[in-house]
Amino acid sequence: MIRLYHSPLSPFCRKVRLVLAEKRLEVELVEERYWEGRADFLRMNPAGKVPVLRENGLTLGESTAICEYLEETHPEPALLPARPAERAEARRLVCWFDDKFHQEVTKNLLYERVNKKVMGLGYPESKNVKAGAQKIKFHLDYMAWLLDHRRWLAGDRMTLADFAAAAHLSCLDYISDVDWHRNEAVKDWYAKIKSRPAFRSILADQIPGFPPPPHYADLDF
Amino acid sequence: MIRLYHSPLSPFCRKVRLVLAEKRLEVELVEERYWEGRADFLRMNPAGKVPVLRENGLTLGESTAICEYLEETHPEPALLPARPAERAEARRLVCWFDDKFHQEVTKNLLYERVNKKVMGLGYPESKNVKAGAQKIKFHLDYMAWLLDHRRWLAGDRMTLADFAAAAHLSCLDYISDVDWHRNEAVKDWYAKIKSRPAFRSILADQIPGFPPPPHYADLDF
Repeated sequence: MIRLYHSPLSPFCRKVRLVLAEKRLEVELVEERYWEGRADFLRMNPAGKVPVLRENGLTLGESTAICEYLEETHPEPALLPARPAERAEARRLVCWFDDKFHQEVTKNLLYERVNKKVMGLGYPESKNVKAGAQKIKFHLDYMAWLLDHRRWLAGDRMTLADFAAAAHLSCLDYISDVDWHRNEAVKDWYAKIKSRPAFRSILADQIPGFPPPPHYADLDF
Repeated sequence: MIRLYHSPLSPFCRKVRLVLAEKRLEVELVEERYWEGRADFLRMNPAGKVPVLRENGLTLGESTAICEYLEETHPEPALLPARPAERAEARRLVCWFDDKFHQEVTKNLLYERVNKKVMGLGYPESKNVKAGAQKIKFHLDYMAWLLDHRRWLAGDRMTLADFAAAAHLSCLDYISDVDWHRNEAVKDWYAKIKSRPAFRSILADQIPGFPPPPHYADLDF
Protein backbone atom coordinates (compact mmCIF):
# COMPACT_ATOMS: atom_id res chain seq x y z
CA MET A 1 0.00 0.00 0.00
CA ILE A 2 1.25 3.45 -0.94
CA ARG A 3 1.28 6.17 1.72
CA LEU A 4 1.43 9.82 0.70
CA TYR A 5 2.37 12.55 3.15
CA HIS A 6 0.59 15.56 1.80
CA SER A 7 -1.13 18.87 2.44
CA PRO A 8 -4.61 19.32 0.90
CA LEU A 9 -3.95 22.65 -0.84
CA SER A 10 -0.44 21.83 -2.08
CA PRO A 11 -0.52 21.80 -5.90
CA PHE A 12 2.49 19.46 -5.92
CA CYS A 13 0.65 16.94 -3.75
CA ARG A 14 -2.48 17.30 -5.85
CA LYS A 15 -0.50 16.52 -9.00
CA VAL A 16 0.77 13.29 -7.40
CA ARG A 17 -2.72 12.42 -6.10
CA LEU A 18 -4.12 12.86 -9.61
CA VAL A 19 -1.45 10.59 -11.06
CA LEU A 20 -2.08 7.93 -8.41
CA ALA A 21 -5.84 8.07 -8.94
CA GLU A 22 -5.60 8.04 -12.73
CA LYS A 23 -3.41 4.94 -12.49
CA ARG A 24 -5.91 3.45 -10.02
CA LEU A 25 -3.32 3.04 -7.29
CA GLU A 26 -4.75 2.92 -3.82
CA VAL A 27 -3.17 5.42 -1.46
CA GLU A 28 -3.35 6.23 2.23
CA LEU A 29 -3.24 10.01 2.58
CA VAL A 30 -1.48 11.33 5.69
CA GLU A 31 -1.80 15.04 6.27
CA GLU A 32 1.56 16.56 7.22
CA ARG A 33 1.99 20.02 8.72
CA TYR A 34 5.36 20.16 6.98
CA TRP A 35 6.08 23.75 8.05
CA GLU A 36 6.33 22.54 11.66
CA GLY A 37 9.45 20.52 10.73
CA ARG A 38 8.64 17.30 12.59
CA ALA A 39 11.91 15.40 13.09
CA ASP A 40 10.60 12.10 11.67
CA PHE A 41 9.32 13.93 8.63
CA LEU A 42 12.65 15.67 8.06
CA ARG A 43 14.36 12.30 8.20
CA MET A 44 12.12 11.15 5.35
CA ASN A 45 12.66 14.33 3.35
CA PRO A 46 15.44 16.68 4.46
CA ALA A 47 13.99 19.30 2.10
CA GLY A 48 11.08 19.51 4.59
CA LYS A 49 8.46 19.55 1.86
CA VAL A 50 5.41 17.57 0.82
CA PRO A 51 4.69 15.36 -1.07
CA VAL A 52 6.59 12.38 0.28
CA LEU A 53 5.60 8.94 -0.98
CA ARG A 54 6.32 5.71 0.87
CA GLU A 55 5.91 2.23 -0.57
CA ASN A 56 7.44 -0.99 0.75
CA GLY A 57 10.12 0.75 2.77
CA LEU A 58 11.02 3.06 -0.11
CA THR A 59 10.77 6.81 0.54
CA LEU A 60 10.49 9.26 -2.35
CA GLY A 61 10.52 13.05 -2.30
CA GLU A 62 9.91 15.77 -4.91
CA SER A 63 6.76 15.59 -7.00
CA THR A 64 8.74 15.52 -10.28
CA ALA A 65 10.70 12.46 -9.17
CA ILE A 66 7.58 10.79 -7.75
CA CYS A 67 5.54 11.26 -10.94
CA GLU A 68 8.34 9.90 -13.13
CA TYR A 69 8.68 6.95 -10.76
CA LEU A 70 4.95 6.19 -10.95
CA GLU A 71 5.05 6.49 -14.73
CA GLU A 72 7.95 4.03 -14.88
CA THR A 73 6.55 1.51 -12.40
CA HIS A 74 2.89 1.77 -13.46
CA PRO A 75 3.00 2.69 -17.13
CA GLU A 76 -0.75 2.29 -17.75
CA PRO A 77 -2.54 4.54 -18.43
CA ALA A 78 0.42 6.50 -19.80
CA LEU A 79 0.65 10.11 -18.66
CA LEU A 80 3.59 10.92 -20.88
CA PRO A 81 3.47 10.44 -24.67
CA ALA A 82 5.60 7.78 -26.36
CA ARG A 83 7.85 9.98 -28.52
CA PRO A 84 10.78 11.80 -26.84
CA ALA A 85 9.95 15.18 -28.42
CA GLU A 86 6.36 14.97 -27.19
CA ARG A 87 7.49 13.83 -23.76
CA ALA A 88 9.77 16.88 -23.64
CA GLU A 89 6.83 19.15 -24.47
CA ALA A 90 4.73 17.62 -21.68
CA ARG A 91 7.64 17.99 -19.23
CA ARG A 92 8.25 21.57 -20.36
CA LEU A 93 4.69 22.42 -19.44
CA VAL A 94 4.91 20.62 -16.10
CA CYS A 95 7.88 22.90 -15.37
CA TRP A 96 5.89 25.88 -16.63
CA PHE A 97 3.22 25.33 -14.02
CA ASP A 98 5.40 24.02 -11.20
CA ASP A 99 7.95 26.80 -11.61
CA LYS A 100 6.67 29.85 -13.49
CA PHE A 101 2.98 29.63 -12.59
CA HIS A 102 3.93 28.66 -9.03
CA GLN A 103 6.26 31.64 -8.58
CA GLU A 104 4.02 34.17 -10.30
CA VAL A 105 0.55 33.06 -9.32
CA THR A 106 0.28 30.30 -6.69
CA LYS A 107 2.71 31.96 -4.28
CA ASN A 108 1.12 35.38 -4.69
CA LEU A 109 -2.47 34.25 -4.30
CA LEU A 110 -2.75 30.93 -2.46
CA TYR A 111 0.27 31.26 -0.20
CA GLU A 112 -0.57 34.86 0.68
CA ARG A 113 -4.25 34.21 1.38
CA VAL A 114 -4.19 30.71 2.90
CA ASN A 115 -0.74 29.34 3.75
CA LYS A 116 0.31 32.45 5.66
CA LYS A 117 -2.77 32.22 7.88
CA VAL A 118 -2.53 28.46 8.40
CA MET A 119 1.18 28.72 9.25
CA GLY A 120 0.71 31.76 11.51
CA LEU A 121 2.81 34.02 9.28
CA GLY A 122 0.52 37.05 9.32
CA TYR A 123 -1.67 38.74 6.76
CA PRO A 124 -1.61 38.72 2.96
CA GLU A 125 0.64 41.34 1.37
CA SER A 126 -1.73 43.22 -0.92
CA LYS A 127 0.91 44.06 -3.55
CA ASN A 128 1.66 40.33 -3.95
CA VAL A 129 -2.03 39.46 -4.22
CA LYS A 130 -2.43 42.15 -6.88
CA ALA A 131 0.58 40.86 -8.81
CA GLY A 132 -0.81 37.31 -8.70
CA ALA A 133 -4.27 38.44 -9.83
CA GLN A 134 -2.65 40.22 -12.77
CA LYS A 135 -0.31 37.35 -13.72
CA ILE A 136 -2.96 34.63 -13.71
CA LYS A 137 -4.62 36.36 -16.69
CA PHE A 138 -1.47 35.93 -18.78
CA HIS A 139 -1.29 32.26 -17.81
CA LEU A 140 -4.94 31.59 -18.62
CA ASP A 141 -4.43 33.27 -21.99
CA TYR A 142 -1.36 31.14 -22.65
CA MET A 143 -3.38 28.01 -21.84
CA ALA A 144 -6.14 29.22 -24.17
CA TRP A 145 -3.56 29.71 -26.92
CA LEU A 146 -2.24 26.16 -26.42
CA LEU A 147 -5.77 24.74 -26.35
CA ASP A 148 -6.57 26.55 -29.55
CA HIS A 149 -4.02 24.27 -31.27
CA ARG A 150 -4.39 21.12 -29.17
CA ARG A 151 -7.01 18.99 -27.43
CA TRP A 152 -4.96 18.87 -24.22
CA LEU A 153 -2.22 21.20 -23.05
CA ALA A 154 0.72 19.22 -24.41
CA GLY A 155 -0.94 17.60 -27.44
CA ASP A 156 -3.68 15.23 -28.49
CA ARG A 157 -3.66 13.22 -25.28
CA MET A 158 -4.02 14.07 -21.62
CA THR A 159 -0.61 14.15 -19.91
CA LEU A 160 1.12 15.07 -16.71
CA ALA A 161 1.09 18.67 -17.98
CA ASP A 162 -2.71 18.76 -17.66
CA PHE A 163 -2.46 17.39 -14.14
CA ALA A 164 0.19 19.93 -13.14
CA ALA A 165 -1.95 22.78 -14.46
CA ALA A 166 -5.16 21.40 -12.93
CA ALA A 167 -3.41 20.90 -9.60
CA HIS A 168 -2.48 24.58 -9.38
CA LEU A 169 -5.77 25.86 -10.77
CA SER A 170 -7.88 23.66 -8.49
CA CYS A 171 -6.08 25.09 -5.44
CA LEU A 172 -6.75 28.61 -6.67
CA ASP A 173 -10.34 27.71 -7.52
CA TYR A 174 -10.76 26.61 -3.90
CA ILE A 175 -10.30 30.27 -2.93
CA SER A 176 -12.29 31.57 -5.94
CA ASP A 177 -9.22 33.07 -7.61
CA VAL A 178 -9.82 31.73 -11.12
CA ASP A 179 -11.96 33.69 -13.55
CA TRP A 180 -13.50 30.88 -15.59
CA HIS A 181 -15.26 33.36 -17.84
CA ARG A 182 -12.02 34.72 -19.25
CA ASN A 183 -11.39 31.92 -21.78
CA GLU A 184 -14.01 29.45 -22.92
CA ALA A 185 -11.35 26.95 -24.03
CA VAL A 186 -9.75 26.87 -20.58
CA LYS A 187 -13.11 26.40 -18.90
CA ASP A 188 -13.97 23.52 -21.24
CA TRP A 189 -10.58 21.93 -20.56
CA TYR A 190 -11.06 22.24 -16.80
CA ALA A 191 -14.60 20.82 -17.03
CA LYS A 192 -13.22 17.77 -18.83
CA ILE A 193 -10.47 17.17 -16.31
CA LYS A 194 -12.66 17.99 -13.30
CA SER A 195 -15.19 15.33 -14.28
CA ARG A 196 -12.62 12.53 -14.27
CA PRO A 197 -12.95 10.02 -11.41
CA ALA A 198 -9.31 10.85 -10.51
CA PHE A 199 -10.45 14.33 -9.50
CA ARG A 200 -13.01 13.23 -6.90
CA SER A 201 -10.76 13.15 -3.86
CA ILE A 202 -9.50 16.66 -4.65
CA LEU A 203 -13.02 18.05 -4.93
CA ALA A 204 -13.83 16.57 -1.51
CA ASP A 205 -10.97 18.43 0.25
CA GLN A 206 -11.98 20.70 3.09
CA ILE A 207 -9.56 23.06 4.83
CA PRO A 208 -10.73 24.11 8.32
CA GLY A 209 -11.40 27.85 8.39
CA PHE A 210 -11.50 28.02 4.58
CA PRO A 211 -14.77 26.55 3.27
CA PRO A 212 -14.66 26.19 -0.54
CA PRO A 213 -17.14 28.17 -2.65
CA PRO A 214 -20.21 26.22 -3.91
CA HIS A 215 -18.88 26.07 -7.52
CA TYR A 216 -15.62 24.39 -6.39
CA ALA A 217 -16.95 20.82 -6.46
CA ASP A 218 -19.69 21.52 -9.02
CA LEU A 219 -18.99 19.76 -12.32
CA ASP A 220 -21.27 22.25 -14.03
CA PHE A 221 -19.53 25.38 -12.69
CA MET B 1 23.78 19.77 -35.20
CA ILE B 2 22.41 20.82 -31.84
CA ARG B 3 22.21 24.51 -31.02
CA LEU B 4 21.93 25.64 -27.40
CA TYR B 5 20.81 29.13 -26.48
CA HIS B 6 22.50 29.71 -23.17
CA SER B 7 24.06 32.11 -20.71
CA PRO B 8 27.55 31.21 -19.41
CA LEU B 9 26.79 31.55 -15.69
CA SER B 10 23.35 29.91 -15.78
CA PRO B 11 23.52 26.69 -13.73
CA PHE B 12 20.61 25.29 -15.73
CA CYS B 13 22.51 25.82 -18.99
CA ARG B 14 25.67 24.38 -17.48
CA LYS B 15 23.79 21.23 -16.47
CA VAL B 16 22.63 20.76 -20.06
CA ARG B 17 26.12 21.53 -21.43
CA LEU B 18 27.58 18.87 -19.12
CA VAL B 19 25.03 16.31 -20.28
CA LEU B 20 25.72 17.13 -23.95
CA ALA B 21 29.48 16.90 -23.47
CA GLU B 22 29.31 13.70 -21.43
CA LYS B 23 27.24 12.13 -24.20
CA ARG B 24 29.77 13.49 -26.75
CA LEU B 25 27.14 15.44 -28.63
CA GLU B 26 28.49 18.35 -30.58
CA VAL B 27 26.76 21.61 -29.83
CA GLU B 28 26.82 25.15 -31.14
CA LEU B 29 26.54 27.51 -28.17
CA VAL B 30 24.65 30.75 -28.78
CA GLU B 31 24.79 33.28 -25.98
CA GLU B 32 21.37 34.74 -25.30
CA ARG B 33 20.75 37.87 -23.23
CA TYR B 34 17.43 36.33 -22.24
CA TRP B 35 16.54 39.18 -19.85
CA GLU B 36 16.24 41.52 -22.84
CA GLY B 37 13.25 39.52 -24.08
CA ARG B 38 14.15 39.37 -27.78
CA ALA B 39 10.95 38.62 -29.72
CA ASP B 40 12.42 35.69 -31.68
CA PHE B 41 13.69 34.17 -28.46
CA LEU B 42 10.30 34.50 -26.75
CA ARG B 43 8.74 32.73 -29.70
CA MET B 44 11.08 29.80 -29.05
CA ASN B 45 10.47 29.83 -25.32
CA PRO B 46 7.57 31.92 -24.03
CA ALA B 47 8.97 31.43 -20.50
CA GLY B 48 11.79 33.75 -21.62
CA LYS B 49 14.49 31.60 -20.03
CA VAL B 50 17.61 29.77 -21.07
CA PRO B 51 18.48 27.02 -21.87
CA VAL B 52 16.68 26.45 -25.16
CA LEU B 53 17.83 23.58 -27.32
CA ARG B 54 17.20 23.33 -31.06
CA GLU B 55 17.79 20.27 -33.18
CA ASN B 56 16.37 19.55 -36.64
CA GLY B 57 13.56 22.07 -36.33
CA LEU B 58 12.64 20.88 -32.85
CA THR B 59 12.72 23.47 -30.05
CA LEU B 60 12.96 22.39 -26.42
CA GLY B 61 12.77 24.49 -23.26
CA GLU B 62 13.33 23.81 -19.54
CA SER B 63 16.53 22.09 -18.49
CA THR B 64 14.64 19.23 -16.81
CA ALA B 65 12.79 18.40 -20.01
CA ILE B 66 15.94 18.83 -22.12
CA CYS B 67 18.03 16.50 -19.95
CA GLU B 68 15.34 13.79 -19.96
CA TYR B 69 15.07 14.17 -23.74
CA LEU B 70 18.82 13.76 -24.18
CA GLU B 71 18.80 10.74 -21.87
CA GLU B 72 16.00 9.16 -23.92
CA THR B 73 17.44 9.93 -27.35
CA HIS B 74 21.13 9.33 -26.49
CA PRO B 75 21.05 6.74 -23.71
CA GLU B 76 24.83 6.16 -23.63
CA PRO B 77 26.54 6.90 -21.33
CA ALA B 78 23.53 6.69 -19.00
CA LEU B 79 23.14 9.60 -16.61
CA LEU B 80 20.20 8.05 -14.79
CA PRO B 81 20.43 4.62 -13.12
CA ALA B 82 18.45 1.67 -14.48
CA ARG B 83 16.17 0.95 -11.50
CA PRO B 84 13.13 3.23 -10.96
CA ALA B 85 13.85 3.77 -7.24
CA GLU B 86 17.42 4.85 -8.00
CA ARG B 87 16.27 7.05 -10.85
CA ALA B 88 13.86 8.71 -8.41
CA GLU B 89 16.71 9.38 -5.99
CA ALA B 90 18.82 10.97 -8.74
CA ARG B 91 15.85 13.09 -9.85
CA ARG B 92 15.09 14.08 -6.23
CA LEU B 93 18.61 15.46 -5.94
CA VAL B 94 18.38 17.27 -9.26
CA CYS B 95 15.30 19.00 -7.82
CA TRP B 96 17.20 19.64 -4.58
CA PHE B 97 19.84 21.66 -6.43
CA ASP B 98 17.65 23.21 -9.11
CA ASP B 99 14.98 24.27 -6.62
CA LYS B 100 16.17 24.40 -3.00
CA PHE B 101 19.85 25.21 -3.59
CA HIS B 102 18.87 27.62 -6.36
CA GLN B 103 16.41 29.52 -4.16
CA GLU B 104 18.57 29.55 -1.06
CA VAL B 105 22.07 29.91 -2.46
CA THR B 106 22.38 30.62 -6.18
CA LYS B 107 19.83 33.45 -6.17
CA ASN B 108 21.28 35.03 -3.04
CA LEU B 109 24.92 34.89 -4.12
CA LEU B 110 25.29 34.64 -7.89
CA TYR B 111 22.20 36.58 -8.92
CA GLU B 112 22.88 39.31 -6.36
CA ARG B 113 26.56 39.69 -7.21
CA VAL B 114 26.62 39.07 -10.96
CA ASN B 115 23.21 38.89 -12.66
CA LYS B 116 21.99 42.16 -11.12
CA LYS B 117 25.02 44.02 -12.45
CA VAL B 118 24.93 42.40 -15.88
CA MET B 119 21.19 43.09 -16.22
CA GLY B 120 21.49 46.64 -14.88
CA LEU B 121 19.34 45.92 -11.83
CA GLY B 122 21.51 47.71 -9.27
CA TYR B 123 23.68 46.57 -6.39
CA PRO B 124 23.70 43.36 -4.34
CA GLU B 125 21.38 43.35 -1.33
CA SER B 126 23.72 42.54 1.55
CA LYS B 127 21.11 40.71 3.62
CA ASN B 128 20.53 38.33 0.70
CA VAL B 129 24.25 37.76 0.20
CA LYS B 130 24.61 37.02 3.92
CA ALA B 131 21.70 34.58 3.82
CA GLY B 132 23.22 32.80 0.82
CA ALA B 133 26.66 32.60 2.46
CA GLN B 134 25.03 31.05 5.51
CA LYS B 135 22.85 28.59 3.58
CA ILE B 136 25.60 27.23 1.35
CA LYS B 137 27.25 25.75 4.47
CA PHE B 138 24.17 23.63 5.16
CA HIS B 139 24.13 22.43 1.55
CA LEU B 140 27.83 21.55 1.52
CA ASP B 141 27.31 19.61 4.76
CA TYR B 142 24.34 17.77 3.25
CA MET B 143 26.48 16.84 0.25
CA ALA B 144 29.25 15.65 2.58
CA TRP B 145 26.70 13.52 4.44
CA LEU B 146 25.53 11.95 1.15
CA LEU B 147 29.12 11.38 0.02
CA ASP B 148 29.91 9.71 3.30
CA HIS B 149 27.48 6.95 2.24
CA ARG B 150 27.94 6.99 -1.51
CA ARG B 151 30.62 7.40 -4.19
CA TRP B 152 28.51 9.93 -6.08
CA LEU B 153 25.63 12.07 -4.85
CA ALA B 154 22.81 9.72 -5.83
CA GLY B 155 24.61 6.38 -5.46
CA ASP B 156 27.49 4.34 -6.84
CA ARG B 157 27.47 5.94 -10.27
CA MET B 158 27.70 9.46 -11.54
CA THR B 159 24.25 10.79 -12.50
CA LEU B 160 22.41 13.90 -13.52
CA ALA B 161 22.33 14.79 -9.79
CA ASP B 162 26.11 15.28 -9.81
CA PHE B 163 25.84 17.48 -12.88
CA ALA B 164 23.06 19.58 -11.36
CA ALA B 165 25.12 20.11 -8.19
CA ALA B 166 28.34 20.77 -10.12
CA ALA B 167 26.53 23.23 -12.39
CA HIS B 168 25.44 25.38 -9.44
CA LEU B 169 28.72 25.05 -7.55
CA SER B 170 30.86 25.84 -10.59
CA CYS B 171 28.94 29.11 -11.10
CA LEU B 172 29.49 30.02 -7.45
CA ASP B 173 33.12 28.97 -7.66
CA TYR B 174 33.52 31.41 -10.54
CA ILE B 175 32.89 34.20 -8.01
CA SER B 176 34.88 32.47 -5.23
CA ASP B 177 31.79 31.76 -3.15
CA VAL B 178 32.51 28.11 -2.34
CA ASP B 179 34.62 27.23 0.69
CA TRP B 180 36.32 24.05 -0.54
CA HIS B 181 38.02 23.60 2.83
CA ARG B 182 34.77 23.01 4.66
CA ASN B 183 34.31 19.34 3.68
CA GLU B 184 37.07 17.18 2.28
CA ALA B 185 34.54 14.76 0.73
CA VAL B 186 32.86 17.54 -1.25
CA LYS B 187 36.19 18.85 -2.48
CA ASP B 188 37.24 15.35 -3.61
CA TRP B 189 33.91 14.89 -5.39
CA TYR B 190 34.29 18.24 -7.17
CA ALA B 191 37.89 17.43 -8.15
CA LYS B 192 36.66 14.20 -9.76
CA ILE B 193 33.89 15.86 -11.71
CA LYS B 194 35.97 18.93 -12.60
CA SER B 195 38.62 16.77 -14.26
CA ARG B 196 36.18 15.15 -16.66
CA PRO B 197 36.54 16.18 -20.31
CA ALA B 198 32.85 17.25 -20.18
CA PHE B 199 33.81 20.04 -17.80
CA ARG B 200 36.37 21.72 -20.08
CA SER B 201 34.07 24.14 -21.85
CA ILE B 202 32.67 25.33 -18.51
CA LEU B 203 36.14 25.99 -17.10
CA ALA B 204 36.92 28.08 -20.19
CA ASP B 205 33.96 30.44 -19.66
CA GLN B 206 34.82 34.12 -19.27
CA ILE B 207 32.26 36.75 -18.29
CA PRO B 208 33.30 40.29 -19.29
CA GLY B 209 33.83 42.42 -16.18
CA PHE B 210 34.01 39.33 -13.96
CA PRO B 211 37.35 37.56 -14.39
CA PRO B 212 37.36 34.17 -12.64
CA PRO B 213 39.81 33.58 -9.77
CA PRO B 214 42.96 31.58 -10.65
CA HIS B 215 41.72 28.45 -8.84
CA TYR B 216 38.52 28.33 -10.94
CA ALA B 217 39.98 26.39 -13.87
CA ASP B 218 42.74 24.73 -11.81
CA LEU B 219 42.19 20.99 -11.51
CA ASP B 220 44.41 20.98 -8.44
CA PHE B 221 42.51 23.75 -6.61
